Amino acid sequence: MTTANQTEAVLAHVDAGLNQSLERLYALLRIKSISTDPAYAEECRRAADWIANELRGLGFDAAARPTPGHPVVVAHGPEQAGPHVLFYAHYDVQPVDPLELWHTDPFEPVLKSDDKGRKIIVARGASDDKGQMLTFIEACRAWKEATGSLPLRVSLMLEGEEESGGKNLPPFMEANRAELAAADIALVCDTDMWDRQTPSITTMLRGLVADEIEITCANKDLHSGMFGNAARNPNQVLAEIIASLRAPDGSVTLPGFYDDVAEISPELKAQWQGLGFDEAAFLGEAGLSLPAGEQGRSVLEMLWARPTCEINGMSGGYTGDGFKTVIPAKASAKISFRLVSGMQPDKIRAAFRKHVEERIPADCSVTFHPHGGSPAITVPSDGVHLRRALEGLSGEWGKPAVVTGSGGSIPVAGDFKRILGLDTLLIGFAHVDDQIHSPNEKYDLDSYHRGIRSWVRVLASLAA
Amino acid sequence: MTTANQTEAVLAHVDAGLNQSLERLYALLRIKSISTDPAYAEECRRAADWIANELRGLGFDAAARPTPGHPVVVAHGPEQAGPHVLFYAHYDVQPVDPLELWHTDPFEPVLKSDDKGRKIIVARGASDDKGQMLTFIEACRAWKEATGSLPLRVSLMLEGEEESGGKNLPPFMEANRAELAAADIALVCDTDMWDRQTPSITTMLRGLVADEIEITCANKDLHSGMFGNAARNPNQVLAEIIASLRAPDGSVTLPGFYDDVAEISPELKAQWQGLGFDEAAFLGEAGLSLPAGEQGRSVLEMLWARPTCEINGMSGGYTGDGFKTVIPAKASAKISFRLVSGMQPDKIRAAFRKHVEERIPADCSVTFHPHGGSPAITVPSDGVHLRRALEGLSGEWGKPAVVTGSGGSIPVAGDFKRILGLDTLLIGFAHVDDQIHSPNEKYDLDSYHRGIRSWVRVLASLAA
Repeated sequence: MTTANQTEAVLAHVDAGLNQSLERLYALLRIKSISTDPAYAEECRRAADWIANELRGLGFDAAARPTPGHPVVVAHGPEQAGPHVLFYAHYDVQPVDPLELWHTDPFEPVLKSDDKGRKIIVARGASDDKGQMLTFIEACRAWKEATGSLPLRVSLMLEGEEESGGKNLPPFMEANRAELAAADIALVCDTDMWDRQTPSITTMLRGLVADEIEITCANKDLHSGMFGNAARNPNQVLAEIIASLRAPDGSVTLPGFYDDVAEISPELKAQWQGLGFDEAAFLGEAGLSLPAGEQGRSVLEMLWARPTCEINGMSGGYTGDGFKTVIPAKASAKISFRLVSGMQPDKIRAAFRKHVEERIPADCSVTFHPHGGSPAITVPSDGVHLRRALEGLSGEWGKPAVVTGSGGSIPVAGDFKRILGLDTLLIGFAHVDDQIHSPNEKYDLDSYHRGIRSWVRVLASLAA
Repeated sequence: MTTANQTEAVLAHVDAGLNQSLERLYALLRIKSISTDPAYAEECRRAADWIANELRGLGFDAAARPTPGHPVVVAHGPEQAGPHVLFYAHYDVQPVDPLELWHTDPFEPVLKSDDKGRKIIVARGASDDKGQMLTFIEACRAWKEATGSLPLRVSLMLEGEEESGGKNLPPFMEANRAELAAADIALVCDTDMWDRQTPSITTMLRGLVADEIEITCANKDLHSGMFGNAARNPNQVLAEIIASLRAPDGSVTLPGFYDDVAEISPELKAQWQGLGFDEAAFLGEAGLSLPAGEQGRSVLEMLWARPTCEINGMSGGYTGDGFKTVIPAKASAKISFRLVSGMQPDKIRAAFRKHVEERIPADCSVTFHPHGGSPAITVPSDGVHLRRALEGLSGEWGKPAVVTGSGGSIPVAGDFKRILGLDTLLIGFAHVDDQIHSPNEKYDLDSYHRGIRSWVRVLASLAA
């Protein structure tokens, strides 16, 4: 239980200490924790140790724990009344190449003004995800320093392999299930605001089923003059299969594909309509104008509430310069399905494979190679934690926080549900123009400052 | 006009001089005339000079003439009564890599026995096309040495770029049209026998239209989570276009595609049925069992007398290891059509492009890149030269020579017709197991010896 006065005191402490908060962020940004490159393994360890040390200074029982890859930092605050939150973020960053496109050293953070006069922090990881991570840790610091304690029990699990596959985290969570599942709700800070004025919580994430197929016809590449017409061409077989996956109305044709897909509620539909999403601008930014999915549905619905089938890659035959009149032996494709709530990855994968197998000529064959599957995530819209977190955000930004979906998949949210039984609130302060994964990554100073303030309020709300 | 006695004398001269004929072939095979590799340009020149010198020794007015690439050897024998033939072959060879798969030095010819006890000449170019070329030149030599003259007027045009695109030959033929078009018929020695006992003349060659298409949807690669369903996926667009090119019955769907395609005559159909072609063995060699073309037609008809559409290459999106959930901006394909007699390459290309353009969504685009087009070639089956050449071949092999088609395209035959107005008789003594373009290329000693004898008889027949 916290009081409004307490919260105001903590917020004032945040404002007064902003420069020191920035200095701490800079210190972390200077550590080159590129997880995918083994040359930076020691830097990853340094980043984990730096964070664990900071958290110990705030009274957490914190350690950088070993995994087969980079360490996972786990920290637990003291026992407290009220809900127990488990915060997730990642301390690793993407590689920085092409380095020549950076205007400043990616690992020497600078505060500058962008072309609209906004203050921005420029460095690799400024937004994704060190800046976002520290909004939470600095909010904890402010509570601790201003009031002597946090308003509720806080644990943290901070990963160092999010940018390089993250395959060691689920086994780590399994191995430490009892300890981590003691929390009541997971908080993840790795997402965007709806716009610069409007905070949001992402409550719907699509799941993913990815499969690779390879079709083999002849036992060797053939000459199209000598064999063309007589020999089956796997490019043709593959193209016919891919074409068969979508109906002219944009729907996916797999039998049973939509069986477990529910229509969104009228309330949610109304809420999304209220977001003022500009379909033409969204598509126009990518040079497109015609939504490709199921006709008659809004783009937001297509993206957040409807499953899709996408051909992420396909290849067969000669694809170099010039021309080669070959009938290849093989053709292959990487195909993925984004799932929405209710759809079962195994069921969709089986339906897909059956659909493909039925279309393979009797003298040809197909092999499948799975590339992972995870169900969609939906946070119940009537949950108390969601409601309180929205209140906290709305209080900071002076307008109602919105509930959004996301067409993407954040596997850790699925792992929280599957392994720990926890719902996840995805709350972040990044913007679409943050250039994450690209040169000149930045985080708005406003994202950082008001992100810290937002967490101060959200923690208070959740504790209420 | 020749007499049977003359021909017998010339044949006896061939038999008696076989060892010297082989030595001359070996000398030519030792020259490393790899046309595609600029490092071997001087070797190509040496091969051309070697041949021109040989021909001058036989009384030809012969020279290696310059082109922007490798030389073309042109030679004319003395004026003679009777028809004037223009013989074509090529002196350049394919590269030899992978060298480690050769059992002997590719440029040091050896005569050895294969696993069936047949004598074979092993070297790069032994079959394709130096061995085949010399069957004709050695036949001319035998006529000259045994009788003092050739039985008809012979010209030769011997190319050095057949294995590297041959783009300099058509302009060379254009520039020397009057000189070359003085011939009555072209002879090409670059094809196979029907089987080891049966000589053949190829009278039908399919034409070719090759086009590359690139479909662009978004202006950049997109994330399939963020955009999947809303953004058009060019892989899907391309697959639907490719799928639309073939009907379920195996026919090509382009409007008008078969308009100019005639059914083969009952006589030809009967002749082809008499060839005893083993469809199951032909497809089985490639690991297949079901003909893919128009159902209800024989495989030989599909290959020789029916046009086809083949997807020689296609690619789009991520095709490396692992998985990337991308919606690519572009997808592309290399597509070719094999044409039969009567079909016009320009008309087919236009029909194809229209078909594609009609299937490009309004906010996407397509570009086309042509890769050449040539019509099919048919030698009139009632021509006197064809009849006489068949008689000559039949006389040598002791069984009727057959008339065959070929699913492939031999552009020079089209150029002879288009530029010089000449029909072409394709007569060769190679076998499908000659390993042309591959390590351990060989030419049967029997192909060489009886090839020379065959040309002795064919020249006599044509002169008759």
